[in-house]
Amino acid sequence: MCPSKVSDGDERGWIIPIGGAEEKQNDRRILSRFVELCGGEDADIVVFPTASRLLDTGARYEEIFRDLGAAAVESIDFDTRRDCEEKGRLERIGRATGLFFTGGNQLRITTLIGGTPVAKLIRQRNAQGVHVAGTSAGAAILSEHMIAFGEEGGSPRAGSVRLAPGLGLTNRFIIDQHFRQRDRLGRLATALAFNPFAIGIGLDEDTAAFIGPDNTLEVEGSGSVTVIDAADLQFSSMDRADEGDAVCLLGLGVHMLVHGATFNLHTRRAGAGTLISPKE
Amino acid sequence: MCPSKVSDGDERGWIIPIGGAEEKQNDRRILSRFVELCGGEDADIVVFPTASRLLDTGARYEEIFRDLGAAAVESIDFDTRRDCEEKGRLERIGRATGLFFTGGNQLRITTLIGGTPVAKLIRQRNAQGVHVAGTSAGAAILSEHMIAFGEEGGSPRAGSVRLAPGLGLTNRFIIDQHFRQRDRLGRLATALAFNPFAIGIGLDEDTAAFIGPDNTLEVEGSGSVTVIDAADLQFSSMDRADEGDAVCLLGLGVHMLVHGATFNLHTRRAGAGTLISPKE
Repeated sequence: MCPSKVSDGDERGWIIPIGGAEEKQNDRRILSRFVELCGGEDADIVVFPTASRLLDTGARYEEIFRDLGAAAVESIDFDTRRDCEEKGRLERIGRATGLFFTGGNQLRITTLIGGTPVAKLIRQRNAQGVHVAGTSAGAAILSEHMIAFGEEGGSPRAGSVRLAPGLGLTNRFIIDQHFRQRDRLGRLATALAFNPFAIGIGLDEDTAAFIGPDNTLEVEGSGSVTVIDAADLQFSSMDRADEGDAVCLLGLGVHMLVHGATFNLHTRRAGAGTLISPKE
Repeated sequence: MCPSKVSDGDERGWIIPIGGAEEKQNDRRILSRFVELCGGEDADIVVFPTASRLLDTGARYEEIFRDLGAAAVESIDFDTRRDCEEKGRLERIGRATGLFFTGGNQLRITTLIGGTPVAKLIRQRNAQGVHVAGTSAGAAILSEHMIAFGEEGGSPRAGSVRLAPGLGLTNRFIIDQHFRQRDRLGRLATALAFNPFAIGIGLDEDTAAFIGPDNTLEVEGSGSVTVIDAADLQFSSMDRADEGDAVCLLGLGVHMLVHGATFNLHTRRAGAGTLISPKE
């Protein structure tokens, strides 16, 4: 599955994975920047609370986005795959300027909407310029290859991670969330070890990667974004490691970005952005 | 403080930091390799249980090293800095072919023996070919700059680590131990951010770095050794970060080594060693 093609004259919408536990009370800069991006007082946001088991998740985000000035917000849920073919909901999604996936269990999102008209529509709308954000589980599902589950720990081990197909808005990266808080470097590196073409993005809580149409990632929030670039990997023992074995990975490039720093997913170059020029 | 100079004709002894919790019952390959290195059935090992608060720590290692075939083993402890000038103990240390520091609190070792004749003798003996190993706190103290305390977490934060001078057998690296088990990537990267000249070595439990006289590190044990090389650091925000702020570090090189892999601390090149040639 490739990302939906961007037509001539169109520009892809932003893709915004958030590491979970983003600030919802005080300094709501991540959610606020998302609303601004979607048009500010003209923003029309659809919230997908599908990953969550809590009944009030959708309503909570509706209230926050309204409070941040969005013109229209609606939470839409799906209980069955059949619901994902329903015309009224598809039309409602089709009108939105921004789409937001809440946290919860990422497999609940993909098992329910994966391969349905809703998934197809979201991919198309993103290619047409609609912005798509997701937090925690909602962040994991944005890319082509997603981490379904895995173990904690700083060093890679065979079998410590399980991948599954995600929504596929992009195939350039693999997301991991709650990164600092749940010690996930090992599992993200393990995920890359299978096939180092993708870039690993580890998002701390209250931290987001705002990825623009030009594939430049900008960090927003109070934590770090850890970028793992395996393009120059010298050696991986993944092909000969038994389940549970420590995996040898030589030659990883790692960038620890904070608010203001950037990473270009196309050129694979990090920049200090507004922090200061790295060439200073 | 520079490492003691190696005289013409001499070769520095091995330096062997161990990540803690090394296997003591079944597959004791780390401790066994240390005994072999020290002469096998001719080995004469002095154990320093100084870091530990447990009274039987020294006796326990005495038993293990004897069981592994060492000719002589003796545990020597110090209660005061005055003890570190005592002739009998200095003579005993001077005869050993291997010295071993147990785990515990690294500041207990450095506050007691730092700057005393015992510290000086250990540095000299290592320069003359005596092998020096240490586990956990005993590993941290081997190098010039040691991590005294710090916080857990995968991403670097200003103030998350406190350095102190160690025993100074080498100044090429900074050790962190229990690496995977206690999620210490962030604090080790923070330690390097102050001044990236040193190489960060993160040791998992039951995993050791056997560092030979030629500065080649060989991994022994069941876990990983994470090498962080900041030589090509493009940018660090350490100089402008406030206490608690996430620190931006761009351009880190990271190698995750397992048993059989190598890293040359002089050339800064990783190798797959006995795993296979990286050029295969």
